[in-house]
Amino acid sequence: MTGIFITFEGGDGVGKTTQMELLKTAIKSADSGREIVVTREPGGTEIGVEIRNLLLHWRGYLAPKAEALLYAADRAHHIETVVRQALARGAVVLQDRYFDSSFAYQGAGRTLGVEEIRGFNLWATGNLFPDFTFLLDMDAETAMQRSAAREGEFDRFHEEKQVFHDRVREEFLALAGAEPERFTVLDASLPAEEIHQQVRERLSHTLPLG
Amino acid sequence: MTGIFITFEGGDGVGKTTQMELLKTAIKSADSGREIVVTREPGGTEIGVEIRNLLLHWRGYLAPKAEALLYAADRAHHIETVVRQALARGAVVLQDRYFDSSFAYQGAGRTLGVEEIRGFNLWATGNLFPDFTFLLDMDAETAMQRSAAREGEFDRFHEEKQVFHDRVREEFLALAGAEPERFTVLDASLPAEEIHQQVRERLSHTLPLG
Repeated sequence: MTGIFITFEGGDGVGKTTQMELLKTAIKSADSGREIVVTREPGGTEIGVEIRNLLLHWRGYLAPKAEALLYAADRAHHIETVVRQALARGAVVLQDRYFDSSFAYQGAGRTLGVEEIRGFNLWATGNLFPDFTFLLDMDAETAMQRSAAREGEFDRFHEEKQVFHDRVREEFLALAGAEPERFTVLDASLPAEEIHQQVRERLSHTLPLG
Repeated sequence: MTGIFITFEGGDGVGKTTQMELLKTAIKSADSGREIVVTREPGGTEIGVEIRNLLLHWRGYLAPKAEALLYAADRAHHIETVVRQALARGAVVLQDRYFDSSFAYQGAGRTLGVEEIRGFNLWATGNLFPDFTFLLDMDAETAMQRSAAREGEFDRFHEEKQVFHDRVREEFLALAGAEPERFTVLDASLPAEEIHQQVRERLSHTLPLG
């Protein structure tokens, strides 16, 4: 038995956590005996939590290239020590953000160039591609309002203007368009349960959930 | 007036700090009015100190690729916010370790491959090469003894075996051999003052020190 690697992408506030929870519950209910690993980037490991704190909550300036390399560092450690081992055990890995976020946020949002970011991210992960990537798509304005409504710590990305988040969204959609066999684009403005049904349907041949 | 970028490389315990201090004093004594910036990697910036702590003093496992990417992240931020600005002001930058250390330690020591490490390090720094690189060369056994004699915190690299440090030394020498116009190889077992004279001589046309 080999595992299934499923990632959730999209801006903050689009409902990734909710969809991961609904899918986790559905897999458990199906009683398949499958191990489920719920994880995230950045911050899916102990040292990754330290890196995440620098990435999201550092109040000073951080050079864009340094930001991109810190994400890749977190990712290299996480993929080697958590994800590959879980997949080898046959687990279903549900992951909040992966390299597509770096392509969209650092490559397009920070305008560093997607191809540059792709090179060292593929090296960092040993070319590990998800089996399925669900992109929760929403216009940047609505997502920012949802995200701002949350209580929370200072977040460097919430400080960015709409034009940044527009570039991120556009790149996510371009990535999905380029790999339709991996990506499913979901309308994040729909009710959570309706989105969840689309997720189940997409997975129905690989992970039957009744 | 443009600056001069001088880096010092070699294993721990070979005397890089001593040589940087001697050179700094000599430049000051020459009273040229040159600004001198003494810095280091990792840890030459505020966020770099945080990254340095993870790199050197983290007691758990750290995936080799993550290590290499953390060094590059520190470097990208340091070069953009400290070194390039100092060089633009016309300063002499004396730097303890640079990308050659990553080629030697992560590329060769950790056997990740020097070419792989080179790609994202050149990207991280925007292809900024030092004007002069002084390699303090010493056999790994003697350097480890000197280094072990120091008091200090737990250091991940001091835990490595001699075969690791042998690979690092060999790679440093290979890098120096490939770029003789940039590198000067110095015998680190010589008295510090004697090494310093060789440094002054190498710099005599660019930075006359009397």
